[in-house]
Amino acid sequence: MDFSSFLTSLGTSFIIFIILMLLFAWLSRRPGNSVIYYPNRILKGMDPLEGGPSRTRNPFSWIREALSSTEQDIINISGLDTAVYFVFLGTVLAIFVLSGLLLLPVLLPIAATDNNIKGSKSDVSNNTFDELDMLSMGNVTEKSSRLWAFLIATYWVSLVTYYSLWKAYNHVSALRAAALMSPEVKSEQFAILVRDIPPPPSGETMKQHVDSYFKAIYPDTFYRSMIVTDNKMVNKIHEELEGYKKKLERAEAVFALSKETGGKPEGVRPTTKTGCMGLLGKKVDSIEYFNEKINELVSKLEAEQKLTLLEKHQSAAIVFFTSRVVAASAAQSLHAQMVNKWTVTDAPEPRQVIWTNLSMKFFMREIRQYIVYVIVALTILFYLIPIGLISAFTTLGNLKKLLPFLKPVLNIGAVRTVLEAYLPQIALIVFLAMLAKLLLFLSKAEGIPSLSHAIRAASGKYFYFTVLNVFIGVTIGNTLFNTFKDIENDPNSAVDILATSLPGSATFFLTYVALKFFIGYGLELSRIVPLIIFHVKKKYLCKTENEIKAAWAPGDLGYVSRIPSDMLVVTLVMCYSVIAPLIIPFGVIYFGLGWLVLRNQALKVYVPSFESYGRMWPHIHTRILASLLLYQVLMFGYFGVKKFVYAPILILLPIVTLIFAFVCRKKFYRAFSSTALEVAAGELKDHPNMEQIYRTYVPPSLGSEKVDDDHYEDAISRLGSFA
Amino acid sequence: MDFSSFLTSLGTSFIIFIILMLLFAWLSRRPGNSVIYYPNRILKGMDPLEGGPSRTRNPFSWIREALSSTEQDIINISGLDTAVYFVFLGTVLAIFVLSGLLLLPVLLPIAATDNNIKGSKSDVSNNTFDELDMLSMGNVTEKSSRLWAFLIATYWVSLVTYYSLWKAYNHVSALRAAALMSPEVKSEQFAILVRDIPPPPSGETMKQHVDSYFKAIYPDTFYRSMIVTDNKMVNKIHEELEGYKKKLERAEAVFALSKETGGKPEGVRPTTKTGCMGLLGKKVDSIEYFNEKINELVSKLEAEQKLTLLEKHQSAAIVFFTSRVVAASAAQSLHAQMVNKWTVTDAPEPRQVIWTNLSMKFFMREIRQYIVYVIVALTILFYLIPIGLISAFTTLGNLKKLLPFLKPVLNIGAVRTVLEAYLPQIALIVFLAMLAKLLLFLSKAEGIPSLSHAIRAASGKYFYFTVLNVFIGVTIGNTLFNTFKDIENDPNSAVDILATSLPGSATFFLTYVALKFFIGYGLELSRIVPLIIFHVKKKYLCKTENEIKAAWAPGDLGYVSRIPSDMLVVTLVMCYSVIAPLIIPFGVIYFGLGWLVLRNQALKVYVPSFESYGRMWPHIHTRILASLLLYQVLMFGYFGVKKFVYAPILILLPIVTLIFAFVCRKKFYRAFSSTALEVAAGELKDHPNMEQIYRTYVPPSLGSEKVDDDHYEDAISRLGSFA
Repeated sequence: MDFSSFLTSLGTSFIIFIILMLLFAWLSRRPGNSVIYYPNRILKGMDPLEGGPSRTRNPFSWIREALSSTEQDIINISGLDTAVYFVFLGTVLAIFVLSGLLLLPVLLPIAATDNNIKGSKSDVSNNTFDELDMLSMGNVTEKSSRLWAFLIATYWVSLVTYYSLWKAYNHVSALRAAALMSPEVKSEQFAILVRDIPPPPSGETMKQHVDSYFKAIYPDTFYRSMIVTDNKMVNKIHEELEGYKKKLERAEAVFALSKETGGKPEGVRPTTKTGCMGLLGKKVDSIEYFNEKINELVSKLEAEQKLTLLEKHQSAAIVFFTSRVVAASAAQSLHAQMVNKWTVTDAPEPRQVIWTNLSMKFFMREIRQYIVYVIVALTILFYLIPIGLISAFTTLGNLKKLLPFLKPVLNIGAVRTVLEAYLPQIALIVFLAMLAKLLLFLSKAEGIPSLSHAIRAASGKYFYFTVLNVFIGVTIGNTLFNTFKDIENDPNSAVDILATSLPGSATFFLTYVALKFFIGYGLELSRIVPLIIFHVKKKYLCKTENEIKAAWAPGDLGYVSRIPSDMLVVTLVMCYSVIAPLIIPFGVIYFGLGWLVLRNQALKVYVPSFESYGRMWPHIHTRILASLLLYQVLMFGYFGVKKFVYAPILILLPIVTLIFAFVCRKKFYRAFSSTALEVAAGELKDHPNMEQIYRTYVPPSLGSEKVDDDHYEDAISRLGSFA
Repeated sequence: MDFSSFLTSLGTSFIIFIILMLLFAWLSRRPGNSVIYYPNRILKGMDPLEGGPSRTRNPFSWIREALSSTEQDIINISGLDTAVYFVFLGTVLAIFVLSGLLLLPVLLPIAATDNNIKGSKSDVSNNTFDELDMLSMGNVTEKSSRLWAFLIATYWVSLVTYYSLWKAYNHVSALRAAALMSPEVKSEQFAILVRDIPPPPSGETMKQHVDSYFKAIYPDTFYRSMIVTDNKMVNKIHEELEGYKKKLERAEAVFALSKETGGKPEGVRPTTKTGCMGLLGKKVDSIEYFNEKINELVSKLEAEQKLTLLEKHQSAAIVFFTSRVVAASAAQSLHAQMVNKWTVTDAPEPRQVIWTNLSMKFFMREIRQYIVYVIVALTILFYLIPIGLISAFTTLGNLKKLLPFLKPVLNIGAVRTVLEAYLPQIALIVFLAMLAKLLLFLSKAEGIPSLSHAIRAASGKYFYFTVLNVFIGVTIGNTLFNTFKDIENDPNSAVDILATSLPGSATFFLTYVALKFFIGYGLELSRIVPLIIFHVKKKYLCKTENEIKAAWAPGDLGYVSRIPSDMLVVTLVMCYSVIAPLIIPFGVIYFGLGWLVLRNQALKVYVPSFESYGRMWPHIHTRILASLLLYQVLMFGYFGVKKFVYAPILILLPIVTLIFAFVCRKKFYRAFSSTALEVAAGELKDHPNMEQIYRTYVPPSLGSEKVDDDHYEDAISRLGSFA
């Protein structure tokens, strides 16, 4: 890519970004769109436009709002996990700004005034270099004492990273402590999750078994236990019931509408067919039919609920304590002499419990974990195979065969050219989109009990995938490949080519980062896609209030793919920071703009679907260090390529990074995997309402009003009479 | 070594063993020796000879007694750690007996009827083989289908080991649970050790700081805290005082004796000199002088005790709880948000606390641990250097130079021959004896808070030392060395030589094991050395009862060198079990005889110096598995040498061993590093006397009667008035 085409691409992206920004400013002021641009405020019962653009008429007032919001605002509105995500963005931003302050004014002139590329150009032809490459380390001649500046820069970036990460870990640790110490009563802080419960002795129910076990250990603070039941059947009936309730609501809405618009004041009663998907079978009156079905299912559900509570006990339970300290301490203590019995962990929040995983046995979880690791490792190594399959399936020829009606369209010259150019990329995008889902599915299959944990696990896998495949695959792979080709022709030039083509890839990634922030954050802020989907759904599909609400439900920040995607940029910018310092401003813009846009989205749009009290941080921290390590190793290699005799000075850096990682893990990590007791001992605002805490864990399908002790007492007494 | 010299050596050892046995039978019946042969019983206040040989007159009644003693007897008399040691001996015995039952009748005939050695002998001369080697796998010809039997035998030994270890781990785990659940009140079960206490806020004493911290977390169960003080000075004074008390006692005994024997009825008052070591200075009356000194030191001690309790606080404390469950749970829980503050562990028993290590900081401990690992690794790798230094120092020439008065003796022919032959071995023995001390010193330097833990750490290091150096060093090293020499002459014979010299080393180790059990256990049982030392001391040195008691103090089992030394035999026998099955009976005798002799010693002689509730077991288990792994890898290699095409079937075994180790660790280990709460919740016999529990932890130098709250209250009030 030459300089002018780089500028063109940058300019085009920038113009698209400006258009998207203006679109956002215009669209977000229209009241009908407020459910798309302010859903979080609406769901929180706040005025969506308070202090917003409609009052000030300034299309950029969102920027002022984002900048003036404090960390505490974010924690209050979107929770600690979101605040931790901003600490991540801010930390990386700080690393890049501090690096750039030294590297840009120092390294660029040093590189620009040397003439390695011009010199080599006269010897090795066939390589196209341009103004951008003149500003990179590739332009410094071998063994030059100018390399000292680059070596010091390598140290500077590392030191800045250590400093920022240390500060950030301390900060996040304090945030987590403050959140866990909060005087608000939070259900999960009074509960523990018990798994691998051994079968009860005969004549005892599971509940008696669990109660007597925990009462013996915690005579004063044990409140109650909830045995996890196999809810598959009851969930199915509940879902069916909810489905019919929605259908009834919809039928009533249609009927009401027909009264107003159909001309007939008595309205047209909607009808439905009783067969498959409402398409076949006898035609009946919808409202009557659905009411009938609902009545039928309600009694069926009640019977099934009773049965579930009585007989479908699984080997897991949630145990409630009257004290936060005891619950925190219990979650960290070994309860049974055999470690694979009565295993105890923190209880996840009620909304993020993965119920179906709870009854999985100890060693089954271990085995599954290793199987998943193997599958992921194979996916990372052989990711080209699924992509190849997708690509093969999506070639024009195959498309024509499979979808013959597209033939006339595909035969148009322009369409064919575009499709031929973009089909592989589309295939890659489809595969990457599927990959996030696949990794989340695999992580859940490990037997992890909470959604936030599964998302952390999936995000970690995704990170290694992107770094290994996109970064190392594209850069080093390509470089080596090109090198080997050239080595065949001229074996002596191999090292030169490696040294000069590493900076060459930098330009490619520069464009990549720029595209990512202009187009990515432009789309993010303007929410064009959700807006269009919402309006289409509202106009053609939604009949009831609930359906409309479901159409604009904003979702959460989507950490599974968001964090690895940011981490890829961190890795790219870090690895090229010294080789091609021009990438640093792009990294700064990426994280600066990202901070700004997502601040707006966190305050106004996204609704977090769980709260893990910042447990994402150690994972982010470790991955930034992994990137740093990769950068240090690459730099060591690159200085070797430059035949710089003092390159061994760099060996110190990876060692320091490993020690730093070890010290951080030792010092901070345990407080993230468990709750420190000094924190749990914080004062509570008011006495916890244990009954209410207990109720939050009752799954909706078991009917929170129905689950009383009655059922259990019933069950116990009945079983007692059998025994 | 040919067959007849092997038999001679075996016979000699056996005769020595018989003599030692008879000596034991004779000596142990003499009442004057009972403090040497029954010290444990005497110290426990039992009749030393109850049911013993003096009544039955049968010199072998100790065998019946040892065999009829139950595991519970051992636990009652010598504690759980000793019982676990017998589980180890029993488990290894079971492994060898079960292996031998199949391997001896099957493999010996298969090996004996082949003729690889005779065949190769005609080709490669210069190798001396004998009847013993005919019975080993070396005698089986390459690629022979007879190797199938050896392959199945390899599997059999592994399976037998898994089975025995699994059973043993379950058994020890149950023993540990029972011991921890004991209704007896044990101080350490009500206490936790707190380290890395941050400095108290100004205006607060350390004790107030600790008390308020733990009172906030455990409002109902916190009893009291004891701040660890810097006792160096007070210990020194206390020691001096105790020294003078002993001297006074001795002087009084001498004076009393002189009255009876000296002829003068008023006696001769002993005198002493006030200068260096009682050899220089003014001559004074001993009794008066010592009394004076004692009075002086008593007041000095009191002043120092006050000062210590007031001002010499360190950043560690022992915190007492009124509940066993809370203490067990607290020891496992994270207390502070920063992991390197307020670190909490189980409290060690009072008698085994290493007080000087307690104030060591978190990261200091980590760093020291790694430094020690590096030192030990270097010692293992370069152990020949210190041995070489010792050897060089102890050559005859050097001895003559350094100790010229020995010259006439050293010039006698016979003496010189013996010394020249044994000096290197003596050097090795001296080095190994020093090594155990060095490793224990290094392990303590890691900052480990309890003696039992330090001994486990040292024993682990010793194990890797012996296996790597003695076993691999001697066998494989020698083999390879010989091989390389021969390879120079005839490169093609290298593999043949390796295959035939591995069984050759087996004969050497066979002799080694036999010597070890006949001489080692003979000396162990007869206790000739401690007996002689005791009688010499009693006759010439001891004047008072206390001095005599100190002369026969039996000590403990000495796990630091005993377990690694047994483990070396395990490794040897296991590794050669299939190659030379004849070693199995020797292993069986070693562990059978060991079990018998040590059962006697545990019941009657040794007094354990600590109780770690079986925490040695996971270490023993891991090391047996390490030996098994080594065996499996060696067998895989050896089958390769035999050019057996089905050798790859053996790859499965190391994998199974690793999985087995992983599963065992997961299932059992945590219950050994912590106390399971269900166990700690066991009923107590009577209400714990917290005051008494607290007192057990007061170091003797601080005077258990003196340390009351008074001092602390004094200190607090005084500091309060300063503030």
